Amino acid sequence: MSEPVVDNVTNKVEKMEVKEKTSAPPKEKKEKKSNKVQLKTPKGTQDYNPRQMTIREQVFDGIKQVFKRHGAVTIETPVFELKETLTGKYGEDSKLIYDLQDQGGEICSLRYDLTVPFARYVAMNGVLNIKRYHIARVYRRDNPIMTKGRFREFYQCDFDIAGTYDLMVPDAECLVMICEILEQVKVGDFQIKLNHRKLLDAIFAICGVPADKFRAICSAVDKLDKSPWEEVRKEMVEVKALDGAVADKIEKFVSLKDEPIKLLQHLRATGMCDGNKDATEALSQLETLFGYLECFGVTQHILFDLSLARGLDYYTGIIYEAVLTGQDRVGSIAAGGRYDGLVGMYGKKDVPAVGFSIGIERIFTILEDEYKKENKKIRENATQVFVVQMEKDLIKERLAIVSELWKAGINAEFSYKVNPKLPAQLNTADESNIPLIIIIGKSEVETNSLSVKTMHDRKQVSIERSNFTVKIKEILSTIPK
Amino acid sequence: MSEPVVDNVTNKVEKMEVKEKTSAPPKEKKEKKSNKVQLKTPKGTQDYNPRQMTIREQVFDGIKQVFKRHGAVTIETPVFELKETLTGKYGEDSKLIYDLQDQGGEICSLRYDLTVPFARYVAMNGVLNIKRYHIARVYRRDNPIMTKGRFREFYQCDFDIAGTYDLMVPDAECLVMICEILEQVKVGDFQIKLNHRKLLDAIFAICGVPADKFRAICSAVDKLDKSPWEEVRKEMVEVKALDGAVADKIEKFVSLKDEPIKLLQHLRATGMCDGNKDATEALSQLETLFGYLECFGVTQHILFDLSLARGLDYYTGIIYEAVLTGQDRVGSIAAGGRYDGLVGMYGKKDVPAVGFSIGIERIFTILEDEYKKENKKIRENATQVFVVQMEKDLIKERLAIVSELWKAGINAEFSYKVNPKLPAQLNTADESNIPLIIIIGKSEVETNSLSVKTMHDRKQVSIERSNFTVKIKEILSTIPK
Repeated sequence: MSEPVVDNVTNKVEKMEVKEKTSAPPKEKKEKKSNKVQLKTPKGTQDYNPRQMTIREQVFDGIKQVFKRHGAVTIETPVFELKETLTGKYGEDSKLIYDLQDQGGEICSLRYDLTVPFARYVAMNGVLNIKRYHIARVYRRDNPIMTKGRFREFYQCDFDIAGTYDLMVPDAECLVMICEILEQVKVGDFQIKLNHRKLLDAIFAICGVPADKFRAICSAVDKLDKSPWEEVRKEMVEVKALDGAVADKIEKFVSLKDEPIKLLQHLRATGMCDGNKDATEALSQLETLFGYLECFGVTQHILFDLSLARGLDYYTGIIYEAVLTGQDRVGSIAAGGRYDGLVGMYGKKDVPAVGFSIGIERIFTILEDEYKKENKKIRENATQVFVVQMEKDLIKERLAIVSELWKAGINAEFSYKVNPKLPAQLNTADESNIPLIIIIGKSEVETNSLSVKTMHDRKQVSIERSNFTVKIKEILSTIPK
Repeated sequence: MSEPVVDNVTNKVEKMEVKEKTSAPPKEKKEKKSNKVQLKTPKGTQDYNPRQMTIREQVFDGIKQVFKRHGAVTIETPVFELKETLTGKYGEDSKLIYDLQDQGGEICSLRYDLTVPFARYVAMNGVLNIKRYHIARVYRRDNPIMTKGRFREFYQCDFDIAGTYDLMVPDAECLVMICEILEQVKVGDFQIKLNHRKLLDAIFAICGVPADKFRAICSAVDKLDKSPWEEVRKEMVEVKALDGAVADKIEKFVSLKDEPIKLLQHLRATGMCDGNKDATEALSQLETLFGYLECFGVTQHILFDLSLARGLDYYTGIIYEAVLTGQDRVGSIAAGGRYDGLVGMYGKKDVPAVGFSIGIERIFTILEDEYKKENKKIRENATQVFVVQMEKDLIKERLAIVSELWKAGINAEFSYKVNPKLPAQLNTADESNIPLIIIIGKSEVETNSLSVKTMHDRKQVSIERSNFTVKIKEILSTIPK
């Protein structure tokens, strides 16, 4: 049995890869009992230290900025849902869902993605249109590969537009936003592969695939980014009992990828899709989309790729997947598409929707590695001033000084020792890259003054004690970032 | 049996209240099976809509600002821990812990608070000192009272200082920070009740409580904020088999509360604690603390209250609990204390620690009610500009305009209809309180211009189309917030 290749990136990203797994869910040995408490986090989870958190928060802030630039609001849903809310949404991947123990009462499961809770939210609250982002953790009981950013508990950054709008307008904005986010996080050159679910199904029909095999053949096509055509063909013919001649016809289509307008023109010029109503409709929709993307100035990032299939059944329109072109170690880093039927599975009313997930854990893995390689200094706290005492018995003076700093809104720290040694204090300030230190000694107390040292130029000046925070703010504003 | 009165606020806040429950964990009826999916969130949980999220994010940002002002870093831990990590930490409240189903592999439970995961983190990572905040959700299978901000899934805002420092210095900073946070969130007047665990135990010893009854009597005392002395006495004597004369002696102590220095002087003047080494030590520690609090200028918020007991066993030094003085409907809204032994329960090394939790859900409940009462307008998105078309067939012009706005970092939206009606567009802009609209019509296209309307004064001007984002930024900067 092959190793499961599930990525804990985003539902939309990884569903594709999960879909085909036939292996049983991973069984683990029960830990041996002992009296000593095991000092570890559960398998597939990890703590994040202040350094990692600093990087993560910066990235999240940047992504939120993009979401807000496009007028998005945010919502929050519980970390667990009724089990039945998730049932029937993930196919055979349901085995990866974490269930809560039945302790009496409702049967619940940890959320597997943010899309299903979103659809449940929209239906339950009778929302007719919303443009929302949601950055939160989801849970999958899969085989983790920690070094590749594949965890059992991991973040998703989702954006979706639900509502009845005109063709391809919100879809185009989603694609622009993926571009803006990937540029924002500075993760390297990228490309967005794009296809249309309806076109793909039309192609299967044109090639002669029986309708009941569409999804199975779609899943096989979905593997073309990882496996050569021969293997995929083998799966189609040997595992999924497709006529070999039909498979060969499919190859002619799914090997096509090009700049959006070029491939569109090629398909029309060759007449490959002629006579199929769905194909004609999908191509016309894509033409509209490409026109909008032109206006948005992002076509250079788009690759119209007939081999893109995406695993999830619920897609009904365009589908897309972003990959880094500079490296291939992480797979797709963003993905999504249009799903017009999911909300209707919960509520009485269908609310069409389109959206995407950013595979943020993979991006963190890349960024953390880069930071490590470049030995980048990262400030974990935001302290601006460290208050130092030169001689003994000045704790109360220090407390009064930091207190005034805090009241003035200045981030300040001091040693928690009553009589700390001078080198130790300076060392703390230095290690935390605190830009300014205030020094107080007996002579400062006598003259009602404070010594102030800016660390970037090691210059020291004396300022008056009274109303000193005004002067400190002034000095802080002159320090280069 | 009385209804459990557990609050889902913070571990430190509510443990006290939970401690004494003797009732069994709430049993719920199994939901009847039906084919229709129930459209609800699990009991005790809820969705948060964009309006609620806006309030919550503002409050969290304000609290984070205080944490950062004091040099805190942040960490993240998994939402579930190995079950054994939580075992033996919560006494009889362990029955409120959510367990994950045994699906093969490790046995895990959802975190019950942030303090135990923090202690596990410090021990596991060999951290010797850290000043960290952690804002995250925790889980308790208790009877929810949604209208009072009591949920099964709720946020805690924790701050802790771990490390070997001098007596009462970090403890004093924690108290200042509680004051700063409660002032920051503008939740009304408050008071921090303060006591010392060692002093309380000394008092029990002085009164003649047998050592093996300290914790049980402590729990009884803990109820004095909710029940009259007679009831508490009854519990001591009838349930906990304490000598009535001993109980009466305890009353003399636990009825004492006053300004810190005043009560300290009273205890010394009356000689009530004389001859007990632990009491002498605790009083001396408190004297040091009160001196520091004086320097920090927060004594007016502190009430030295000998009846404050706090439920958790792990406290070893000062304990405190903040309440709103203007209203009593929510109970305590912040609480904490010193716990020098908890980290040592996980690692080889003891790392002393002090900290607090903010009962943020109760604060949200109050704030949301106030916002509702005052009918406060809250902007849920951050959109600055809405791009409107006057006549038909200008979708591509609109797309080009928003695209330029986004590139310039301006938050902009537009209608997703190809040919939206003018009133509908203006309505959207108005409902979302978007401060500026850009209007494009055929005449604007012809003259290479844009009409710009500022919504606060309804003034409209015409600007040049080329490089228009510079002018838009200029106009935006003049709009009053």
